[in-house]
Amino acid sequence: MAAIELGDVRRRRADRARQVADVLRRQVVNGVFGDGVLPAESCLVREFAASRNTVRDALDLLRGEGLIERCPGVGSVVVAEKYTHGFERLLGLGETLKGHGEVTNEVRTTGSFTPPQEISDRLALPPGEPVVYIERLRRIGGVPFSLDLTYIVRDLGEPLLEEDLVHNDVFVLLERLAGQPLGTAEMTMEAVNADPHSAAVLETPRGTALLMAERLTRLADGRPVDLEYIRFRGDRITMTGTLRRT
Amino acid sequence: MAAIELGDVRRRRADRARQVADVLRRQVVNGVFGDGVLPAESCLVREFAASRNTVRDALDLLRGEGLIERCPGVGSVVVAEKYTHGFERLLGLGETLKGHGEVTNEVRTTGSFTPPQEISDRLALPPGEPVVYIERLRRIGGVPFSLDLTYIVRDLGEPLLEEDLVHNDVFVLLERLAGQPLGTAEMTMEAVNADPHSAAVLETPRGTALLMAERLTRLADGRPVDLEYIRFRGDRITMTGTLRRT
Repeated sequence: MAAIELGDVRRRRADRARQVADVLRRQVVNGVFGDGVLPAESCLVREFAASRNTVRDALDLLRGEGLIERCPGVGSVVVAEKYTHGFERLLGLGETLKGHGEVTNEVRTTGSFTPPQEISDRLALPPGEPVVYIERLRRIGGVPFSLDLTYIVRDLGEPLLEEDLVHNDVFVLLERLAGQPLGTAEMTMEAVNADPHSAAVLETPRGTALLMAERLTRLADGRPVDLEYIRFRGDRITMTGTLRRT
Repeated sequence: MAAIELGDVRRRRADRARQVADVLRRQVVNGVFGDGVLPAESCLVREFAASRNTVRDALDLLRGEGLIERCPGVGSVVVAEKYTHGFERLLGLGETLKGHGEVTNEVRTTGSFTPPQEISDRLALPPGEPVVYIERLRRIGGVPFSLDLTYIVRDLGEPLLEEDLVHNDVFVLLERLAGQPLGTAEMTMEAVNADPHSAAVLETPRGTALLMAERLTRLADGRPVDLEYIRFRGDRITMTGTLRRT
């Protein structure tokens, strides 16, 4: 009986810590703590009407996610370097972050090859038609942000390889080469654990939560031209947007 | 020198395995393999123009994500139970999955309390005004899908607690109680690793990648009424939608 009660107390404390952590997470990511220092534990105890142990557990959760660190004599400080990316407007990373951080792309692989049927189908290409492949590790402020595998139709992909891919978004280059704007993109997003090799490339512990996106982008005339598989480091990106009931 | 070359070969193989896995992942989730059995390794070798080792590594990656299993004598079979949720239209889980799986909600906690200021601010409430809190573990076909922490304004939240929360979406109930439809919601999404307690509640290994959402929902008249923090099991949800360039 005592064991059950203790279990119950532990569960309640963990539940409360999760509630507190969820509110603080958003504040940390939104930069509410202007000086980067979280309020003292005693303030948080009052603000959340929670026990000191609960507040400590909540801070532990955020530390586990790499958002804050404990600094002796200072308290809990924000170390998150998360960037916000919209899920409504189709924008490249450099466009999104204009003025907020320098994006550089390490081009790991480029080439031309005959893709598997799934990729031909998505890009509406006849079987056997080659595509251009580009693999880039993208960094913001020098720290890995995402690993992007990109398949591009040949007539745009081949001239694209002559361009400066290190400092430019593919989207911007594609529009220039195509002589028309992009139109829409179909995107799926999932959370997956990083396999050991992807984790090593992204300089993050194996098993780290990644936001994995697949995005098929079309020109304004509706033609699909760019199929990407993107692994975002979970500790570096927040996707944001508006949903509508009707 | 030999060691460098070996490292190079390993890197190339891992890079190729990732490419193959990314294409197969989408096919698995989209139900392309109607009978739930993936093509034989020799077929995948031909389809992807990859070595047998690369194909095996790719299948290992998908096994690691809990999407497929190896069955002796049969091959690789799909075990994924992923559901697709849109990120454009504001729909409850039950509404989204109508006809695709039975949603049941285990109500873990309900109550009324004075929220921290962050939550008052998001819900546009004066300081000290209580809110109703509901914590639900949502299951599809009996298997945990998400853990939802929900804060609702008192005038709607109190009558909501009298309703059947086990079998109904909060959205549908809110519209009935408010006498008007919902309007829009602001949502953020992130990938985080499950802390041990959340993992235990969601019946998934600790560290599992979760899709974590915060969603503030407004009535059609613009009034914010429902603030939710939702942990989706990464192996059970795919978010999907369309992005527009302009």
